[in-house]
Amino acid sequence: MVVCAPMSARDFRVMLEARWSEGKFLCVGLDSDLAKIPESVRKEDTRQTLVAFNRAIIDATKDLVCAFKLNSAFYEAHGDEGLAALRETIGYISEIMPEVPVILDAKRGDIGNTNEQYAYATFKHLRADAVTVSPYLGGEPLEAFFKYADKGVIVLCHTSNEGAKEVQQLSVDGEPLYKVVARLAAEKWNKHGNCCLLVGATYPEALGEVRAIVGEMPILIAGIGAQDGDLHATIKQGISSKGRGLIVNAARSIIFASQDHNFAKAARGKAQELHDAITKALIQ
Amino acid sequence: MVVCAPMSARDFRVMLEARWSEGKFLCVGLDSDLAKIPESVRKEDTRQTLVAFNRAIIDATKDLVCAFKLNSAFYEAHGDEGLAALRETIGYISEIMPEVPVILDAKRGDIGNTNEQYAYATFKHLRADAVTVSPYLGGEPLEAFFKYADKGVIVLCHTSNEGAKEVQQLSVDGEPLYKVVARLAAEKWNKHGNCCLLVGATYPEALGEVRAIVGEMPILIAGIGAQDGDLHATIKQGISSKGRGLIVNAARSIIFASQDHNFAKAARGKAQELHDAITKALIQ
Repeated sequence: MVVCAPMSARDFRVMLEARWSEGKFLCVGLDSDLAKIPESVRKEDTRQTLVAFNRAIIDATKDLVCAFKLNSAFYEAHGDEGLAALRETIGYISEIMPEVPVILDAKRGDIGNTNEQYAYATFKHLRADAVTVSPYLGGEPLEAFFKYADKGVIVLCHTSNEGAKEVQQLSVDGEPLYKVVARLAAEKWNKHGNCCLLVGATYPEALGEVRAIVGEMPILIAGIGAQDGDLHATIKQGISSKGRGLIVNAARSIIFASQDHNFAKAARGKAQELHDAITKALIQ
Repeated sequence: MVVCAPMSARDFRVMLEARWSEGKFLCVGLDSDLAKIPESVRKEDTRQTLVAFNRAIIDATKDLVCAFKLNSAFYEAHGDEGLAALRETIGYISEIMPEVPVILDAKRGDIGNTNEQYAYATFKHLRADAVTVSPYLGGEPLEAFFKYADKGVIVLCHTSNEGAKEVQQLSVDGEPLYKVVARLAAEKWNKHGNCCLLVGATYPEALGEVRAIVGEMPILIAGIGAQDGDLHATIKQGISSKGRGLIVNAARSIIFASQDHNFAKAARGKAQELHDAITKALIQ
């Protein structure tokens, strides 16, 4: 007799740990910019084009990843059709790879009663397993997300963009703001054990400092590939003492690896290359 | 001959200045929580219910306001139907009150290429006149919003929630973070003249400090009403030297003023009360 696990069995941290135990740390970012989708996969309408492209990328890379990440902005830009494509893509991943968690990269953050609505939209309506959020309003309103204990709540700590320094490296009593945020996350906000952080691969030193503060907490690494993050340094600085804790996201460099009809094969090639490079960095 | 202004004539700052010159500073926040919408206005489906409620509130208050603000979360929670209601509501305001700007309160903020998509979604797809954004990633990625020079870009400075202090009042070389953000906004980020700030009415002293830094920059005031901000102190601290610069938002206290069939009349009563209190504070 086959016993199907109920929906509530999808626990983000448990799913991640299982993928990590298989040596998978790569996360494919479905930042599916409509303008960059190859001609060969285009359909009649925007929804179908986005879904067809995403399915092809998912099919080509799904055995190599610890998670998929969908960046909400690239779907919101297309209104109803984009939202439908976002929902269908999450549904597709849950169906064909129920063991792979889905992160909604939405960088949400408002006061408590508003975050209740964002959390509902993310976890109940879209059925994502994790969401990225902003720390700027403090930990109190984020409780609306954290209280979904089986979901991951990934707090922005040090983002990958060049201009991130302007605010995130401001000196708070001699310590950069991103380290203060990391400490708040680790010591105060993680009551339900589901807090994670986002750190850009473009700042490997910051990543090492954050890891020293947060112990085994999962860290989503942004900016590998298109943003020229140094993969080797990133893995060395970011891996936890148990050899886990990393979700290494690459988006444009994988999904838009080629514009020809073999785009999915090219995406797999790039994903395999990154997977191998991560594995190599881990054993060196 | 009547000459209709083209769509591009909708300049957020110009529209605001015109409303301020009529003595209107109130902004009605359409945080239209489905669970709280009165029975008498409910329709067959969620979209229709949200739109019918919003139209009733808009019709009842439109001559008293300098802007309407829609909080994206309360629509996102309902997927396609919510998104359709959001778009229809913005369309309705633009149609019946083309002189009143619409703020999308979405608190977006990501890296540059992602913000390009959010800006498109906000200004082109939804046709909002302004949007709220987070400063955590610095000013550089916000340029994707700022470059729409006729749109308002409202940067979170000091939010209204109790827990806001935890990050926003951290001491950066002896100065609280929110003041550093205000200075960055005024001195560095406002190249296109369309930068605005958000400050919570629950922190009137912070508001005074911010006003001293930013001159005539428009400030969206959150937290009047349900969050018990002190209106008189807020107006005194927040008004600019030219007697302008404030967008005083109230949401729950107006739109859910009553649950009976006279809910729109009750909303108008509450809006009038706030409008009068603002006027009184201004002349005292």
